[in-house]
Amino acid sequence: MADEVILLDYWPSMFGMRTRVALEEKNIKFDYREQDLFNKSPILLEMNLVHKKIPVLIHNGKPVCESLIQVEYIDETWPGGNPLLPSDPYQRAQAKFWGDFIDKKVYGPTRLIWGAKGEEQEVGTKEFIEMLKMLESELGDKTYFGGETFGYVDIALIGFYCWFDILEKCGNFSIDAVCPKLIAWAKRCMKRDSVAKSLPDSDKINKFVPELKKKIGIE
Amino acid sequence: MADEVILLDYWPSMFGMRTRVALEEKNIKFDYREQDLFNKSPILLEMNLVHKKIPVLIHNGKPVCESLIQVEYIDETWPGGNPLLPSDPYQRAQAKFWGDFIDKKVYGPTRLIWGAKGEEQEVGTKEFIEMLKMLESELGDKTYFGGETFGYVDIALIGFYCWFDILEKCGNFSIDAVCPKLIAWAKRCMKRDSVAKSLPDSDKINKFVPELKKKIGIE
Repeated sequence: MADEVILLDYWPSMFGMRTRVALEEKNIKFDYREQDLFNKSPILLEMNLVHKKIPVLIHNGKPVCESLIQVEYIDETWPGGNPLLPSDPYQRAQAKFWGDFIDKKVYGPTRLIWGAKGEEQEVGTKEFIEMLKMLESELGDKTYFGGETFGYVDIALIGFYCWFDILEKCGNFSIDAVCPKLIAWAKRCMKRDSVAKSLPDSDKINKFVPELKKKIGIE
Repeated sequence: MADEVILLDYWPSMFGMRTRVALEEKNIKFDYREQDLFNKSPILLEMNLVHKKIPVLIHNGKPVCESLIQVEYIDETWPGGNPLLPSDPYQRAQAKFWGDFIDKKVYGPTRLIWGAKGEEQEVGTKEFIEMLKMLESELGDKTYFGGETFGYVDIALIGFYCWFDILEKCGNFSIDAVCPKLIAWAKRCMKRDSVAKSLPDSDKINKFVPELKKKIGIE
């Protein structure tokens, strides 16, 4: 039986982008099903009973939730193609540490930058830049976070790149000015088919954010 | 060369308990170094540069941070002894999902129960019970979360058990009344040497919490 792979996703989600990129890296064909998060579908509610959030990866009828867990699952289920996590336990632990760091420390500030104003927005901006600097320091002069090979940490972070432009506009700062190596890394990632295919244009995100703010009543 | 394993930890930490239990399950001798979180040691600051938090597992001089990542690392580094994660990718993803759920949804409410008052404390209590019910439903009639074998999800959750008594006292509720299967599971876990050795007595936590509240100025 051929694998049936369905992805419940929402196009602007940097979390969904991770799973898209991972599937593309493994050359897995999947049925992409765009979800309306303001009117959740029965399949989303059924497949992610606990959090009711996208992305949900459904493999042969069975759901896997949480994007970084999906990336690991994809790597373990389809070990052919490009490996996403290193095989050495210590290197694996380091990769997972930085993936977790991105979830805990990078996402929150981005919401403040586009969704808040005044002091709160300033706090978000300051923190976001600080976190990016830590990531830039971890990247150093390597091609990718794992060294020469594109993988897990790159996948965890790259989805934020198409949000950089709107974040810079909202917070009035330049990422390139403080983290030039990170921008060079993002541009290298964008040359990969898997990433180019999975990330929307910044312009589309720029138009989406004001609409989202209206929709959730913060504009 | 024999492995040098050091654990920087703090005795009441349910996160530190995870790593202790995992090391005990694998019969790994380790040098336990109690940390003063109000006066952080140079070794803690050096070994967890990013978060500056315990537990830190230092294996042959190299640090691994974040308790669930440590549990995975221990399982991969010492594959002999009891396996902590299942080998099947789907079962692994499910175990990681529940570990992540405990971190995201169970810890926060516990802080509100012992650290807040009035409405905030009530919200914490309500949410905590709801999350425990979800965990009880996931456990069902199984011996352990993974089935017949004690493992990752049990390790992720069991440290909370020695806090149950103080939480019930602070929030004025009974966990056994709403989640009897979960209490039976915890008692089963406590019969394991690895768990019994790694968890402090509830009495010690009961005395510790009022002291902690004074120390951080919320009493």
